[in-house]
Amino acid sequence: MKDFRTISANTQICAVIGNPIAHSLSPALHNAAFAELSLDFIYVACRVEDVKNALAGMRALENFRGMSVTIPHKIEAMKYVDDIAEADRSIGSINTIIHEKDKLVGLGTDGPGALKTLVDAGIEINGKNILMLGSGGAARAIAFTLALNTKPGELSILDINERMLQQLTTDLKAGTDASIKSQLLTQNSLAEAMDTADIILHCTPVGMHPNTDASLIPSDLFRSGQVVFDIVYTPLETKLLAHAKSRGLTIICGVEMFINQAVLQFEQFTGVNAPVEVMRRVVMEQLKL
Amino acid sequence: MKDFRTISANTQICAVIGNPIAHSLSPALHNAAFAELSLDFIYVACRVEDVKNALAGMRALENFRGMSVTIPHKIEAMKYVDDIAEADRSIGSINTIIHEKDKLVGLGTDGPGALKTLVDAGIEINGKNILMLGSGGAARAIAFTLALNTKPGELSILDINERMLQQLTTDLKAGTDASIKSQLLTQNSLAEAMDTADIILHCTPVGMHPNTDASLIPSDLFRSGQVVFDIVYTPLETKLLAHAKSRGLTIICGVEMFINQAVLQFEQFTGVNAPVEVMRRVVMEQLKL
Repeated sequence: MKDFRTISANTQICAVIGNPIAHSLSPALHNAAFAELSLDFIYVACRVEDVKNALAGMRALENFRGMSVTIPHKIEAMKYVDDIAEADRSIGSINTIIHEKDKLVGLGTDGPGALKTLVDAGIEINGKNILMLGSGGAARAIAFTLALNTKPGELSILDINERMLQQLTTDLKAGTDASIKSQLLTQNSLAEAMDTADIILHCTPVGMHPNTDASLIPSDLFRSGQVVFDIVYTPLETKLLAHAKSRGLTIICGVEMFINQAVLQFEQFTGVNAPVEVMRRVVMEQLKL
Repeated sequence: MKDFRTISANTQICAVIGNPIAHSLSPALHNAAFAELSLDFIYVACRVEDVKNALAGMRALENFRGMSVTIPHKIEAMKYVDDIAEADRSIGSINTIIHEKDKLVGLGTDGPGALKTLVDAGIEINGKNILMLGSGGAARAIAFTLALNTKPGELSILDINERMLQQLTTDLKAGTDASIKSQLLTQNSLAEAMDTADIILHCTPVGMHPNTDASLIPSDLFRSGQVVFDIVYTPLETKLLAHAKSRGLTIICGVEMFINQAVLQFEQFTGVNAPVEVMRRVVMEQLKL
């Protein structure tokens, strides 16, 4: 295992910034991956309130190679980078910053991480009806990524927050040619949407620790053949996933998306393929602490 | 030995900034000391041109605890910190920045490192005549530290650079009550100063690698009982020190000052006593590579 004696001016520095940051899994995850491949990189975690100056510092510290950006800075960070891909501009947030020679490049790996998770699980997306619950930051990232990179049948979005729902719907219709349908989340709209959904993407915090006894979808709405993907990963198996599993459906745990967004960040930081199994093992160890 | 898996949001980050920075011994030195005491600190090295934003970043990254500042940033860095001790203001440069809860405190450890080196070597300073060769940054730091913290007999300063010499002389007379004498460095002024000097402090780059065959002091000027301290430490024994040693004089190698300035930085970063022997061993290993 690499130890601190190997650090020199050649060492590339990466960090996660956010607030709070105390429980971030990212240092353990990325440092294990750097060590596995004997890369001269190190990853730290910093509580930050002042995003602007954190990024000014990243520019000034020339070997500060990469940054993971987490809550509450994913939107504001966009203001202080030089380049952002069109898709990430539409999504409206970034979670990764790469320090190229003379500029900062912002991008998001949440959406691509979710897509990779579906692809890795062998889920066919093209032509399938997708039901997305939620229209917040993660939902936006996943919806745009799917709409821009796959050809779903219908993408139906439900939320209780009408303003956010309308914003995402408007933005998706303006920025993609996907077939979008959105409705306020009610018992009726949910039952109707479940009736035609092939893939259900749960993108709200419902069911997350400590409120693990909650689920948005009544168990009797599941139909055989559906795939249920919950982005919540604490607990690893949410009540939603437990219900879906008990009905014999294919379930995908949010931890895979968490791992994949980190895998894609790692590959942006280093330019080499990530040691995915090492990263998964570290995440699983940390989540079971 | 600590490894990278121990890094978390609690880890305190320290860095050296400078340009060039590639050959800095500081990461090896401080990381070995952190590891020896099992402190949750890490030390990196960053090439920096933009000091202002490097320090803005330090402020924003809340666990960025300490910074070593090296050439060419020791003067400019003073502009961007909140507090500087009066002595360091007089010296006109800093080599250390500590991130307290809501402010950056600048200070210098070169002068105190030199003083500690003399004290550790058992050299009596009070009442002794000191001859200082050079009036640049290191000379300023050492001269002010000695003038403010000890009671030498006469502090005589020689340099070939009249402007720098006058500036230091004026500043010392304004800021301390030491007895200062300064003269342009010539064969005659050197011979005269050597005739009354008890302690000779060599603070110019003469004799530094690769020009190791040079020495400012003709061997026949040494008198028995003199102490010769050369701040140059590449090579560990300069021609000046070799000559002084062959004349039976007490010699002090600049590497001890280098170690001590780092020891004092470490104690500022961590608030605990530095493991001096570990730090010395690392420096010696690195210098012999």
